Amino acid sequence: MSKYTLGLDFGTLDGRAVLVDVETGEELATTVYTYPDGVIDEVLPDGKTELGSDWALQNPADYITALEHTVPEVLKKSKIAPADIIGIGIDFTSCTILPIDKQGIPLCLKDEWKSNPHAWVKLWKHHSAEPYANRLREIALKRKEKFIYRYGGKISSEWMFPKIWQVLEEAPEIYQAADRFIEAGDWIVLQLTGQERRSSCNAGYKAIWDKKDGYPSPEFFDALHPRLKNVVEEKLSTYIYSAGSKAGGLTLQMARFIGLKENTPVAVGIIDAHSAVPACTVTQPGKMVLIMGTSTCHMLLSKEQKLIPGIPGVVEDGILTGYFGYEAGQAAVGDIFDWFVSNCVPANYEKEAQKSGINIYRFLEEKASKLRPSEIGLIALDWWNGNRSILNNADLSGMLLGLTLNTKPEEIYRALIEATAFGTRIIIDTFQENGLPIEELYACGGMPHKDKMLMQIYADVNGREIKIASSPQASALGAAMFGALAAGSEAGGYDSIEDSVKHMASLEKMTFIPIRENEQTYNRLFTEYKKLYDYFGRKGNQIMERLKRR
Amino acid sequence: MSKYTLGLDFGTLDGRAVLVDVETGEELATTVYTYPDGVIDEVLPDGKTELGSDWALQNPADYITALEHTVPEVLKKSKIAPADIIGIGIDFTSCTILPIDKQGIPLCLKDEWKSNPHAWVKLWKHHSAEPYANRLREIALKRKEKFIYRYGGKISSEWMFPKIWQVLEEAPEIYQAADRFIEAGDWIVLQLTGQERRSSCNAGYKAIWDKKDGYPSPEFFDALHPRLKNVVEEKLSTYIYSAGSKAGGLTLQMARFIGLKENTPVAVGIIDAHSAVPACTVTQPGKMVLIMGTSTCHMLLSKEQKLIPGIPGVVEDGILTGYFGYEAGQAAVGDIFDWFVSNCVPANYEKEAQKSGINIYRFLEEKASKLRPSEIGLIALDWWNGNRSILNNADLSGMLLGLTLNTKPEEIYRALIEATAFGTRIIIDTFQENGLPIEELYACGGMPHKDKMLMQIYADVNGREIKIASSPQASALGAAMFGALAAGSEAGGYDSIEDSVKHMASLEKMTFIPIRENEQTYNRLFTEYKKLYDYFGRKGNQIMERLKRR
Repeated sequence: MSKYTLGLDFGTLDGRAVLVDVETGEELATTVYTYPDGVIDEVLPDGKTELGSDWALQNPADYITALEHTVPEVLKKSKIAPADIIGIGIDFTSCTILPIDKQGIPLCLKDEWKSNPHAWVKLWKHHSAEPYANRLREIALKRKEKFIYRYGGKISSEWMFPKIWQVLEEAPEIYQAADRFIEAGDWIVLQLTGQERRSSCNAGYKAIWDKKDGYPSPEFFDALHPRLKNVVEEKLSTYIYSAGSKAGGLTLQMARFIGLKENTPVAVGIIDAHSAVPACTVTQPGKMVLIMGTSTCHMLLSKEQKLIPGIPGVVEDGILTGYFGYEAGQAAVGDIFDWFVSNCVPANYEKEAQKSGINIYRFLEEKASKLRPSEIGLIALDWWNGNRSILNNADLSGMLLGLTLNTKPEEIYRALIEATAFGTRIIIDTFQENGLPIEELYACGGMPHKDKMLMQIYADVNGREIKIASSPQASALGAAMFGALAAGSEAGGYDSIEDSVKHMASLEKMTFIPIRENEQTYNRLFTEYKKLYDYFGRKGNQIMERLKRR
Repeated sequence: MSKYTLGLDFGTLDGRAVLVDVETGEELATTVYTYPDGVIDEVLPDGKTELGSDWALQNPADYITALEHTVPEVLKKSKIAPADIIGIGIDFTSCTILPIDKQGIPLCLKDEWKSNPHAWVKLWKHHSAEPYANRLREIALKRKEKFIYRYGGKISSEWMFPKIWQVLEEAPEIYQAADRFIEAGDWIVLQLTGQERRSSCNAGYKAIWDKKDGYPSPEFFDALHPRLKNVVEEKLSTYIYSAGSKAGGLTLQMARFIGLKENTPVAVGIIDAHSAVPACTVTQPGKMVLIMGTSTCHMLLSKEQKLIPGIPGVVEDGILTGYFGYEAGQAAVGDIFDWFVSNCVPANYEKEAQKSGINIYRFLEEKASKLRPSEIGLIALDWWNGNRSILNNADLSGMLLGLTLNTKPEEIYRALIEATAFGTRIIIDTFQENGLPIEELYACGGMPHKDKMLMQIYADVNGREIKIASSPQASALGAAMFGALAAGSEAGGYDSIEDSVKHMASLEKMTFIPIRENEQTYNRLFTEYKKLYDYFGRKGNQIMERLKRR
């Protein structure tokens, strides 16, 4: 009799449940539920409280409604009995945090606080805590805090402490009223199990926590703000668990709510990008996983802890237990192509695409794929949303060079794709140069299954074969795999991530192999890219920053 | 009784006649005739002889047909009697040359040669003589020829001798068969008057001729190719006349052909951009004339001869008799905006513009004019067609910097306009720094009457008031003014260009005055532009050239 696990994947715009056969990895049913309140960035759900710029909130009730809709629906679609579902895994965006009361109820759901923006979930891309991130960083550097070097000398405004500090400064009443601040992924685990079991993945990458050193010291927090001195003790939790461990069993109440069996094992939460790593079959060093979508995350495992300049996070057990997990990122990839399609594609192209019955991305790809790599004479810097790795500079911007009166839209499109591939190569080279060799590339996410030209360019630029995860929803599958770990072999699951990979994860037959000739051309172009990268990115000419601060 | 002159303006795509009241400058009638063969750049009119890339030819029969159509038509429209037309002036594109036989008949119109591409008119933008221009330049520099410094150390492939040399090397039979090579403008004068009176304007700017030094020496030409040794004597003419002097009277045959009186005075020809100078009322130093269209020409008069780095031509009597005429240029201006509109404006903008019933240029202008100068955070290098002045480098290309996910098409459009204004400022600054002060700007051509935002940006960037010629066809009006000079005061015309300007040329009431605040912002942005200009244009990073030579 087959056994199944559920992967629950909470993205930026929707929640998703996938039901997976533990033995074969077959994805029997998937249901996606779009959050009614989506990203709240202009006005609160009360319809009157307006938000500042760079705000991005969410409604935690949407997460619960997502559970209510998706889990029963996949059961119905797949006709699998609740008794055969042996485990549940959760992946979530991060750092996405909320203030809750003693009972775990989000403050924003209480009448008292519902019109206070700081009571709501601060989504990962809520960027208005930037001044707090900068001050935190400065103070840490001044105090020569060990942790700041672990994060390449940078603290992102997306992370937990800048966001908490923002609450304290801008809404002390919320800080006061909050029993705890918690990652939304950990909060979902709490809702499902009644247990607060915080994830080492979230804590390590986004809350300056380290397996050996723990959180920063009270003295450090005191230097930020006296009321933050005991923030860890007062507002967080020091009980941190690694991904794949069991957080607890489904409560009776929740089991009834979503139609599953009481006590079904639930895994500790994991960040969505990290969850994709085992779903790409990767459980070993030397294999970099690219999660390619609107932005790209680059995940790498190693037995060694190295401080790599510009890589803002190496976390022990952060991805898989027993390894140091490294995360790098490109702040915009698909977002750049979407920008281009929305803002720069002429009407006659749209018309022609319509006539051919293909979407405009495929139309551009068709035209661009007929060009030889050396042909277009264009080069771009892919910094439309700043540069995350290696430069960690949000004030950098995009550049396009080589334009002539004969330049065609598909040439620009191809140059943008090439630029993002060069951006990946810079990251790979940085790992390599700092003693972490990368032999193979694995890709998942929105692009690898549909953008063949793009994948070939990535292979050519990076001079490495790229393998593709079979599942088009690798994060959700990964969550289901962690669900199987939480269940353990006795219940029909697995005791190691390697076993789970063997059965549940697989790769596409087709891979992308570098074409020798293109590789050589791109080596030449990459030299040009790198020269521009250094000039505009490393203080040769800080014009981009000056233009942003105009 | 009023008197009139005819301005005959031969452009790249059409010929135009304008009938002007000598006393008031009123343009009574204008007729435009589009050349049937236009720019011949793929296959000869024989329908079978294919041309190489970078070729651009014309059919001289089109010029004659243009005369046949336009002159009678303006007479008819204006109801002016031929007897009241006291003079004719001609302006023409340059350097546009053709080989002719002893009788002045173009070789390409003879059966024997009509399928030989080199028998046809080589239009100014025929660029396939580039290798000859480069060799000519190298040899001149090696020999330290005085003339090469007069042209800022550069010889353009558009000029006469590279084109003639190309004929000699690639079609020696045409070189042999040609009795003379002649500028098309001078050829038209020959057709009208039976007199070969070559223009000092053409010769000085495009044929390395100087009022004092004449043409380069036979020794120099011998160093290019033994058969070129006596090219001036054998294939050109040393009889050179300045603009405004009378070339001769209309022949009886031509008078009948176009419906005018025999012996009507015809002026020596002039280059189209140069003809616009007096039509902008400018007859003095310190006033720069911008002829703004697909590209921009910058014309300046001075009593002094200065060698200005990157200004490829200072010609005594080249624009107006008694002055050294300076010409600078931006290789693409309107062409960049046209490129942008054809390749980068999204369908929804086109739709919205259509709904509002305005053309897409006005639609973009409307949106862009709402932006503050500092707001867009974008900066461009306007080198879509290379850089003519000051860098004289066709291998440079366009660059756009500061792009973000929020960048809108109208922001890019505005950045492109600003970049061309910065390009003009570099030229103005170069003149100033080399001892030729520029106090006022005068504009004519396609743009000044319709692109108000662009003109204001030019005023703000250049920190100078810009006055606009009343006539939207300044070159043609200027030709009519030179026609009045050819007639002379006895016939009812004028004896000096100043007198002709007083009566025939005028300015729009509205001028564009710099806005203080914008000026300051643009000073800051210009500093950024200049830094990029120097970096990419002056060997900081020759990536643009490397990308072109890929």
